[in-house]
Amino acid sequence: MTTSNSIKIIKGNIIFTPTPEEFMITEQGFIVIQDGCVEGVYKSLPSMYSGIEITDYSDKLIIPGMNDLHCHAPQFRNLGMAMDKELLPWLDNYTFPEESRFKDEEYAHSVYSEFVREIWKQGTTRIAVYSTVHKSAALQLMELFENAGLGAYVGKVNMDRNCPDSIRESAEGSLADTRELLEAMANKDSLVKPIITPRFVPSCSDHLLDGLGKLATQYGTPVQSHLSENRGEIEWVKELHADSSFYGEVYDRYGLFGQTPTLMAHCVYSDEQEMSLMRSRGVIAVHCPTSNMNVGSGMMPVRNFLDAGIRVALGSDISGGHTCSIFKTMVYAIQISKLLWADSGKQTAFLSNSEAFYMATKGGGSFFGMVGSFEKGYDFDALIIDDSELNRFGYTLEQRLERFIYVGDDRHILHRYVQGKLIEEPAI
Amino acid sequence: MTTSNSIKIIKGNIIFTPTPEEFMITEQGFIVIQDGCVEGVYKSLPSMYSGIEITDYSDKLIIPGMNDLHCHAPQFRNLGMAMDKELLPWLDNYTFPEESRFKDEEYAHSVYSEFVREIWKQGTTRIAVYSTVHKSAALQLMELFENAGLGAYVGKVNMDRNCPDSIRESAEGSLADTRELLEAMANKDSLVKPIITPRFVPSCSDHLLDGLGKLATQYGTPVQSHLSENRGEIEWVKELHADSSFYGEVYDRYGLFGQTPTLMAHCVYSDEQEMSLMRSRGVIAVHCPTSNMNVGSGMMPVRNFLDAGIRVALGSDISGGHTCSIFKTMVYAIQISKLLWADSGKQTAFLSNSEAFYMATKGGGSFFGMVGSFEKGYDFDALIIDDSELNRFGYTLEQRLERFIYVGDDRHILHRYVQGKLIEEPAI
Repeated sequence: MTTSNSIKIIKGNIIFTPTPEEFMITEQGFIVIQDGCVEGVYKSLPSMYSGIEITDYSDKLIIPGMNDLHCHAPQFRNLGMAMDKELLPWLDNYTFPEESRFKDEEYAHSVYSEFVREIWKQGTTRIAVYSTVHKSAALQLMELFENAGLGAYVGKVNMDRNCPDSIRESAEGSLADTRELLEAMANKDSLVKPIITPRFVPSCSDHLLDGLGKLATQYGTPVQSHLSENRGEIEWVKELHADSSFYGEVYDRYGLFGQTPTLMAHCVYSDEQEMSLMRSRGVIAVHCPTSNMNVGSGMMPVRNFLDAGIRVALGSDISGGHTCSIFKTMVYAIQISKLLWADSGKQTAFLSNSEAFYMATKGGGSFFGMVGSFEKGYDFDALIIDDSELNRFGYTLEQRLERFIYVGDDRHILHRYVQGKLIEEPAI
Repeated sequence: MTTSNSIKIIKGNIIFTPTPEEFMITEQGFIVIQDGCVEGVYKSLPSMYSGIEITDYSDKLIIPGMNDLHCHAPQFRNLGMAMDKELLPWLDNYTFPEESRFKDEEYAHSVYSEFVREIWKQGTTRIAVYSTVHKSAALQLMELFENAGLGAYVGKVNMDRNCPDSIRESAEGSLADTRELLEAMANKDSLVKPIITPRFVPSCSDHLLDGLGKLATQYGTPVQSHLSENRGEIEWVKELHADSSFYGEVYDRYGLFGQTPTLMAHCVYSDEQEMSLMRSRGVIAVHCPTSNMNVGSGMMPVRNFLDAGIRVALGSDISGGHTCSIFKTMVYAIQISKLLWADSGKQTAFLSNSEAFYMATKGGGSFFGMVGSFEKGYDFDALIIDDSELNRFGYTLEQRLERFIYVGDDRHILHRYVQGKLIEEPAI
């Protein structure tokens, strides 16, 4: 038996989704945590753990932390505004000008500090996030996540064409800066890691994509980008790469489509070929329903991706998306699936609560390792939910969770844990 | 000049929509309120008002109160849950069983008290709301709104067919109870008034509809009901009334379609004939985008209604809708219009912020009289928004309002006014 020093025991109403099909619920159960990982969930505490102090959360809910698999930190100032244009003019008019401000380290620090606090506040414990093209800002964002104790893949954005001068890199400069960041983080034992981040095909030359693919392979670094988000964007990619039969093939050609673990955001209009390659390569489709509405992209047919055996996670995609809450992103994912269900003459099934919850926890969490579940061996990333305010009329535990997701907010998140460690509000 | 006793002056950043096309914004302006009504909005205070005390809200926003034109108070316990079925089975499985509990006056009081507080909390100052079939519960809801100081049309629901025994009335009993309520409220000078509320065509016999239409005419009482919400429901109405060429015609035949001021909720699938009659009769279409998603009804083509000259308001429609916030309902209305815009190949225009805001304020407010604007003569129904927490990076006033609508919540609503009177949090 291990020493009790490395063991924590937490008690409460434990809810998680080992599979998308249903919630596993343990009323007044115990989670034994050893060295930051779940040792087990018990209805009655095994006698071997008697004598160890128990943190008793009484009637509160204990659920896995949220995983946000697509997010743009430098767009935090634009959250909840400037959504009157679709993707390409939206980038030109609002997003690129804002991102160009991150050359200023002081400005970057002020926005990123507030951003990291908001991520903490909304109960997100792991995130895959875009910074800007600026190396210094990316390093700052990494440091802020590190100091906060949250898990993050942080990507310095790469782009060397079709963007304003102020944020256009040379291919060589972009690759050199990226390599420098990979080197700086290479031997660190940290929850914060770099990720290769070509913005999207239209903003990256072949030369840049080629170099990024080589870096990904050389350092074994994961990749994130955008895919088949908007009809105008897809047409543009076709014009730029007339020799490609589908959008994702451009990434694939350069080793950026599942050769290392890969996130592709949006996938609203992915065709069968693209989906087939995503499935075989284990590429994760990141569903960003709020952004897809706000920027007028469309409805991602998430059920088709699940049916095709493609891994699906959720992304806030701020500031295309207007909320950092992955709980509210779940709500939108279910709602969009219901619109498609109504449209289909009810031939497809809409998302169940447990399916959406799985995407936000174990589905998205899989990108970070054994994250997003309370099964044995998983990192104990968790939220303690105090929904007493929402529970005045008496509900089942599953109803309480559902109501927290739909009606609750950050006020109901009492505590956040990452790898077994209580995470305090980040200082600004 | 009137005595200063009846005059109040409020200062701050004043924003409202006299027309849907744009926000009228007065930075650091003054609103002069006389006997509860707006006398004028001024950039500089006219000298005739000098010497009168000014309530200075400094940098805060002053906007009209929210108007919720479709809402089911007895479904408050079910808010944010039980949305895994479409309309008709949803009614049978979740809604009707819950509504049957309102025979119990104590239960009704406990739920309705919490409901009224939530309406207050979310910044809704006027509401058109359904109670259940129970006369006593309807009276309680009226009293709670009266005590709270909020404006409300409260409808005792009428239904005498196609519903469980526990909440099915006889036509005669339903009409007698309704008449009794109308009599009780007839000579009251109150912000709380009754409204004739046939649930929807499938749950009302011809005899009941006929009697309700006569009551509406006799007492000059407005009417609210549901219209063309869901494909299955519309088919059912066609079966029940094979002689009607469209759903709304059934109401119309009995004097319940604009003969007195009328609200028709949803209108997702209204055809040209129905829309044409709505326009000519001045029937208000109440757009309930959250409910239309959650219960899988579909997307109301709100632009078509505006283009056709039909009055449009917004409704939370809880618990089909999952939020009482009309601000969040605005967000969804814009988002749904963007999906339709994307679907249409961008042939239709999506809703602008000012159009959505107009629906929630002057559009919906028009049902209550001169409500929802700060033009001269309008009731001073207002919210004071303290968005300092959201304003760390510097924004224009219009951006601040947009960000509050998208990102803010009840924490940012500092004060609520109805007819010039500050409304405190209702006691439970």
